[in-house]
Amino acid sequence: MNRWYLKIEYDGRNYVGWQRQENGPSIQQSLERAIENFSNERIIVQGAGRTDAGVHALGQVAHFDLKKDFSADTVRDAINAHLRPQLISILVAQKVSDKFHARFSAIERSYLYRILNRRSPPTLESGSVWHVKRPLNAGAMHEAAQILVGEHDFTTFRATMCQAKTPVKTINSLSVFTDKDQIIFKVSAPSFLHHQIRNFVGSLRLVGEGKWQLTDLKRALAARDRTEGGETAPAGGLFLTDVTYPPDAIGAA
Amino acid sequence: MNRWYLKIEYDGRNYVGWQRQENGPSIQQSLERAIENFSNERIIVQGAGRTDAGVHALGQVAHFDLKKDFSADTVRDAINAHLRPQLISILVAQKVSDKFHARFSAIERSYLYRILNRRSPPTLESGSVWHVKRPLNAGAMHEAAQILVGEHDFTTFRATMCQAKTPVKTINSLSVFTDKDQIIFKVSAPSFLHHQIRNFVGSLRLVGEGKWQLTDLKRALAARDRTEGGETAPAGGLFLTDVTYPPDAIGAA
Repeated sequence: MNRWYLKIEYDGRNYVGWQRQENGPSIQQSLERAIENFSNERIIVQGAGRTDAGVHALGQVAHFDLKKDFSADTVRDAINAHLRPQLISILVAQKVSDKFHARFSAIERSYLYRILNRRSPPTLESGSVWHVKRPLNAGAMHEAAQILVGEHDFTTFRATMCQAKTPVKTINSLSVFTDKDQIIFKVSAPSFLHHQIRNFVGSLRLVGEGKWQLTDLKRALAARDRTEGGETAPAGGLFLTDVTYPPDAIGAA
Repeated sequence: MNRWYLKIEYDGRNYVGWQRQENGPSIQQSLERAIENFSNERIIVQGAGRTDAGVHALGQVAHFDLKKDFSADTVRDAINAHLRPQLISILVAQKVSDKFHARFSAIERSYLYRILNRRSPPTLESGSVWHVKRPLNAGAMHEAAQILVGEHDFTTFRATMCQAKTPVKTINSLSVFTDKDQIIFKVSAPSFLHHQIRNFVGSLRLVGEGKWQLTDLKRALAARDRTEGGETAPAGGLFLTDVTYPPDAIGAA
């Protein structure tokens, strides 16, 4: 049995999300179909993190097992060939130890969120930015974002349907900066609550507009009440960029 | 009579190009329809440069005339509203002197070309990069590109249907560099021949692959023969980024 690590990029626009669902095509299902068609083996793909409908990935990670033996180039190219014309692309395929688990071995997930902050609507980036017309103060947003770093009860920023056992999570880092006409959020944590980043962005937007001061964000966090937080930012601005593993986890099998 | 300058961004994917044509929707026609619907005046939009089918713009420039008077914010926002849901966006609308002409006043046009240089297919950038799997040497491409800078007879890099009076053009600058998994070309000139940039990129790709040396590019240029040049790179990787005017050309009317 060979366990395979995959690093995957996708445009989440036409999918119900990472996870297999009855109401439409998922990334997971598309991958499984492509791998089964190429290998003629029944397999299950296990992802590092579930992304919601419309959320993109530049570095999702998954694993699966094959009985037959193939070279890494063959696995990557054959899955990519079977995925066409879908906008899902295997960046890396690598044989790993059967102790490697895409979800349970991961020690950190990193995401990017992009706001297009200008008056004029997006064109080429339509569906991959949140269009916010009112000018935002990225410096104030970055300063406020530091309130959210560290271990907190994040009930205020947790989707009501979130199934996590506890609302307590640890944000390793959260930075906000401008890049031309965009405002970029970079956030890393061992794991996140459902909609946590999109709810962070919705609240930090209020800070950027000057509607909220630092004390408002502190009060919202302390309230442990979703109704005290800002809106949920749209899915299209969110990208899963990296999943981190301990140094020895992805060694050759 | 008020003359208006427009700076325009668009996704060229679903258009036959900038110019009005019988075989499908053009950017020019879409703009004219949006302006006419908002102003109730019959107008003609004059663009700084014709972009081909599938070519994008981050900074196309155009002008048109209105009898009625409007504020610049109204013109920009009203055209944008009438353009929805098309992926064409007015970035700037500004009243200018009636001596201003988007095409004839322009002194320089700048373009960007993007190659996605990796084994795996594009996802989010599908339709806005040229996917080249074989590793390219950007340093060698940049060095070779300098052969094309300056005034030359560019017959080798000119589409056979090009209608320019002369094949002699002057390239002001042409640089090639890497940005993550992309190779970026930036090129500026007073004006270009039809397909000139895409033909440059097709030939420089051969240099990047090591199939051509500097002398091959020199010989191709000197041959003044389209069949001596490399292939025409696909339209999707090309972006019109800037059109430059003399400092006094876009002053307030």
